Formats: sequence, C-alpha cells, structure tokens
Amino acid sequence: MTTNYRLCLVGFGNVGKAFARLLMKKGSELAERYNLSISVTGIITGSHGGAINPDGIDLKKALSLASDGKSLESLSTIDTPNDAIDFIKTCPAEFMFETTPVNPQSGQPAIQHIRTALDSGMHVVTANKGPVVHGYGELVALAKQQGRRFLFESAVMDGAPIFALFREPLVGANLLGFHGILNSCTNLLLEMMEQGKSLEEAIAFGKTIGITETDPSNDVDGWDAAIKVAALVTVLMNTPLTPQEVDRTGIRGITPEMIRSAQADGQRWKLVCTAKRVDGRIQAKVAPERVSPQSPLYSVNGTSSYCQFELDVLPGLGILESDPGPETTAYGMFADFLNILEVI
Amino acid sequence: MTTNYRLCLVGFGNVGKAFARLLMKKGSELAERYNLSISVTGIITGSHGGAINPDGIDLKKALSLASDGKSLESLSTIDTPNDAIDFIKTCPAEFMFETTPVNPQSGQPAIQHIRTALDSGMHVVTANKGPVVHGYGELVALAKQQGRRFLFESAVMDGAPIFALFREPLVGANLLGFHGILNSCTNLLLEMMEQGKSLEEAIAFGKTIGITETDPSNDVDGWDAAIKVAALVTVLMNTPLTPQEVDRTGIRGITPEMIRSAQADGQRWKLVCTAKRVDGRIQAKVAPERVSPQSPLYSVNGTSSYCQFELDVLPGLGILESDPGPETTAYGMFADFLNILEVI
Repeated sequence: MTTNYRLCLVGFGNVGKAFARLLMKKGSELAERYNLSISVTGIITGSHGGAINPDGIDLKKALSLASDGKSLESLSTIDTPNDAIDFIKTCPAEFMFETTPVNPQSGQPAIQHIRTALDSGMHVVTANKGPVVHGYGELVALAKQQGRRFLFESAVMDGAPIFALFREPLVGANLLGFHGILNSCTNLLLEMMEQGKSLEEAIAFGKTIGITETDPSNDVDGWDAAIKVAALVTVLMNTPLTPQEVDRTGIRGITPEMIRSAQADGQRWKLVCTAKRVDGRIQAKVAPERVSPQSPLYSVNGTSSYCQFELDVLPGLGILESDPGPETTAYGMFADFLNILEVI
Repeated sequence: MTTNYRLCLVGFGNVGKAFARLLMKKGSELAERYNLSISVTGIITGSHGGAINPDGIDLKKALSLASDGKSLESLSTIDTPNDAIDFIKTCPAEFMFETTPVNPQSGQPAIQHIRTALDSGMHVVTANKGPVVHGYGELVALAKQQGRRFLFESAVMDGAPIFALFREPLVGANLLGFHGILNSCTNLLLEMMEQGKSLEEAIAFGKTIGITETDPSNDVDGWDAAIKVAALVTVLMNTPLTPQEVDRTGIRGITPEMIRSAQADGQRWKLVCTAKRVDGRIQAKVAPERVSPQSPLYSVNGTSSYCQFELDVLPGLGILESDPGPETTAYGMFADFLNILEVI
C-alpha cells in the first residue's frame, strides 16, 4: 500500500527544476523505502506561466518546456490562474515548495505565498531566506495553528542540514555563537583576486560566468551574508535579528595590495560572519578577516561554505559544505519533505 | 506534571563522571523545557564497587567518593551485587548508560552488559565503540524485539552528532564514502614530531601527559582509527565491517625527515581514514598522508577530529569537532537519552 502525496511548486528556476529532477531520480527509492509516491499537481513560474493537473504533471515534459523557454500552460488540465496567490488556492496539494527569488528587504512575495499555502492547509518547504528573516515568528505560529509544518533547510548553506542539526542531533544543547563563511560569491571574488585580478575585474569576470549579479552589491557589500547571519540567529539562537542589525563590512575595501600582503604571510582574506550572545544581547558581524592555514576557514574554497558553532556542551562543531549547487539546495527541500512526513 | 526517569550507570571513569556532572548541570533545564526529571538509581565502577539506591543516588557524593578513590558502597540502600551483570539485573531503571573501557577485539564485556539491560527492558546508551563494531546487528535486533532503543552517538567523534546526522537531517540520502581524521592521539603525536620530537620521544612525552597508553599500539598502529572506520561503515553504510578488514598502516614509519620534508613544502602528515563503496564492496583504509593547507584536514589540530562525507545528494559534507573531552562525550550520551524520549 503506497501513499501518494501531491506537491505544488511555486517557482521553477534552477532550484525548482533541480528539485523536479531529484523527485524523478528518487521516485523508486521513495516507493521501496518509505512506501510513498508523489505527484506534482501544479507548477507556477515567474515568466513561463503555470500549469495545474490534479492527476500529476509530467515532470519530464515540464523540464523540457522550461529548458526550451516555452510556457508550461499546455500541461494544464484545469483552468490555471496566472496569479501565484490564486494558483496556490486552486492547486490541489498537501505540500507547497517555494523557490521564488529572495527579496532581502521584505521577504515578499514569498511570505504571502507561504501564508496562503498554510491557510489552505498545506505544509510548506522553502529554500528562500527572505521569509525566514522577515516572517519566521509569524509563519511558525501560523503553521502551528494550522497543524502543519514550515521548514526551510535550504535557506542557509544549501543542502547542508544546519537547521535539522539543531533539532534531533543537538537536542538539549544551547547555541552560544558561531562564525563562518556563508557567502560563496565573495569567496570566489577573493579567490580571483588572489590569482591577480582587481575587485572590479573579478566582479566583471564573475558576471560572465554567472556568479555575480548585475548589481553586485547584495554580495559584495555583505548583505547576503548578513541575511544568512540574521536567519541563523533568528532560528537557532531564538532571537529575532534583522540584516540591518548586523555590523556589516563588505569586501570593497580589499585591495590587491592587501591580498598580496596576506599571501606573503601565508594567509588569505575571507569574508567572515560571526554572531555571539554577550550579556544577553546578540552581537553579529560580517567583515573581511585574514585567516591562517591553522584556521578551518582557510581551506574553504570556491563556492563551499563553512560554519562553526559554539555550544554550551560542545566547544566547537564545524560544518563544511563542499561544492554546492542547485542539486544540493534541492536535496535540502527533499529532506524537509521527508522530515515532515516523519518517515524515520 | 514532571515524569521521572531512572538511570543506571555502568562504568564511572572520566566519561561516566562527566555524564553525572552534566546531569546535575542540566537538571533544571530538563524540568523547565521537557517536564522531566532523572534519578540515577545505580552506579557500578570498575574498581570502586557499586551502589544501588532506588530513590536516587546523591551524585555529588558519588563524584566526591570517586575522586577520593573511595568505594561507592556506602551510598547503597539495598544489597548491591558486585558483578556487573547481576547489578544490571537488580538495578531498577529504565535506562542503562554503558561507559566501560573499549575492548577492541571482542567488544566484551560491554556487549553482555547491553544484552542484559535490553533483556531487562531498559533502553541502552553507550559511548563504547566495541559493541558497535562487534555487536551492532544483534543488539539492534534485540532492542527492536524488546521495543527499546540502543544508541551510541559518542562511540565515534565524541559528542559530534555523527550518527544522529544520518537519521533526520540526512534522511533519504545515501552515503557513498568518507574520509577524515578520527584518532586524536596520533594527531597529537604527529604535531609533537612537527615540533622536533622523534616518534619515540613523542610517545614517551604523551605518556607523561596521559594521552598515550602504556601500550601505544592501539593508537600508533592505527587500530583505534580502524575500529572507528569499521563502526561508521557498519552503521552508516549498512555493511558489517571488522577492523581487521581495514587496510591499516599506522604512523611508525613516519620519520623526522619525512615530517621536515612535508613542512618544507608547506604540508603536514596526518593519519587519514577513508572508506568508499567500489563495485558494491567497501574499500576501507587507514594510512598516513601528506595534506596541504587547501585540505580541510590540514587545520585539524590537537585532539580535534574531522570527517567528510560524500553522499549521492551532497558532494561533500564535513564535520569538525574541536577540542573534545569527557564533557563532549557525556553530551553525546545525554543527546541519545533525550532522543530516545523523543522530547522534540
């Protein structure tokens, strides 16, 4: 006897598509190990329309249409609203997976998507840190009231299970602080500077390979890192914190001379995130630091990320995620899904 | 309404005592957060007798007697057997915590202690890797049959939650292999050699500060590392493996010249554990390797340990435990206790 669950995908960019591929790849394992099957009953995209099919959308076809830049509308078997909120209200599903782009200032429209899904009785999984920073308390309370779950493992450090780590594995422990490297774009830019580029050249090159956005400020000025710090503090230290409250210095002040000087001493510049509780208050900071090979931060290369936690019961527990990509983010969402179902 | 649980401690060395201290420290948190209290109804030691008090032993007194090298017998309120097996059968408790010394060859007498406790209807938590390597299948089956749990978080990497990580956080993932530094004694010996000592001098000095045993072979010849590899493969890769099946080279072949040559190239020698599945079979190895600062292994100093996992859904997930001690091992057991109770 296999139980079928219906999934609704809001957002179908790199992460949404990787999630669809993972669902196809893991289909037989889900059946064999956990006696469950899934059907994706709805997908809504930012620019290629949406589709609802209560019997399950053919994911192969959806991926093919999306990669050809075509609308998904041809996959609809019922009238499919163009508006995301109406779409969520219409799509018959037990789970919503939210992967729309992050809005660092407000967390919208993701927060509204999540509210609507919870109101409609769905469990919600998001890879979006906006709602975690700007809506955590409200959304957790709403989920509880609705008897549903709101999980967001992939919002920080992609598929590395940072948030789940603090549930069962670190039960009964208290987090005192953490430090780490949480923004991969600046990590790559600093690496390019080590190879001889200026920051401007590195940013320009980063744009050609798709790692730097048109407006690089979100990464270069430390906003992305600050949002991640705020998300970790809010959830893991149980203390609401906004990105604006993080003492934030980006990497614009790092010159080729500073890079060379660090290299001459066998060191590297890294954009380091830190947070700790001091006298009951959170002190959170993002700033470039020189690190030596004796530090676990030194070997964090490329798009890898690292966070070391200091707990009342463990002096240091470090988590390294090597070479993440949309597939690892997709896995974090997949793990959230299985954890909501409590398959183990 | 507070629920009280009765705990029986078999073994009262550094880890057992640290566990007793942690229980005292966390007592009010347990009551406030989880509405539960604990009483230790029995303690049996290797060389200072044992005590059973069905109303709960005064842990402060027990720690004080133990640190004075005195017998615990004065704390008994009922007739307390000297034999551990009879003690376990007599002690009224819902949980047994096993911290007797590791027997790498047979896992005994810990396996027999655990069998007896499970047969008596107790849940079992151990910090001992012997029973994991030599009794895993049997003990898990017995626990299941008895409707009890058998957990061992602290058996590898102390309190770093390696085993719990593969339950909820990494649900639905498949482990393909791992590599890391799992033996802290050799890590310290190699560090002393970097400071100019020969291996013999390092071992001799290690004995004076208590990190090297009288017979250093267990660490120096890679047996401790091999047992840990066997435990990880057995549990996390679901494939029974004995330490003898690990291709094992210790650090006796590392000369001061090799250390200096590595240093001259900016590298370090580390005793590296690896395991991977190749064509359906496990290849497991313990051997010294030169590592560069680009590797996360380079910065693993002192008694710290590190393990990087390769999964079908995550290319690399590394776990670093910094500066562990008996307190961190005790925390792993405490987490097992709370996870058996499913407090979250």
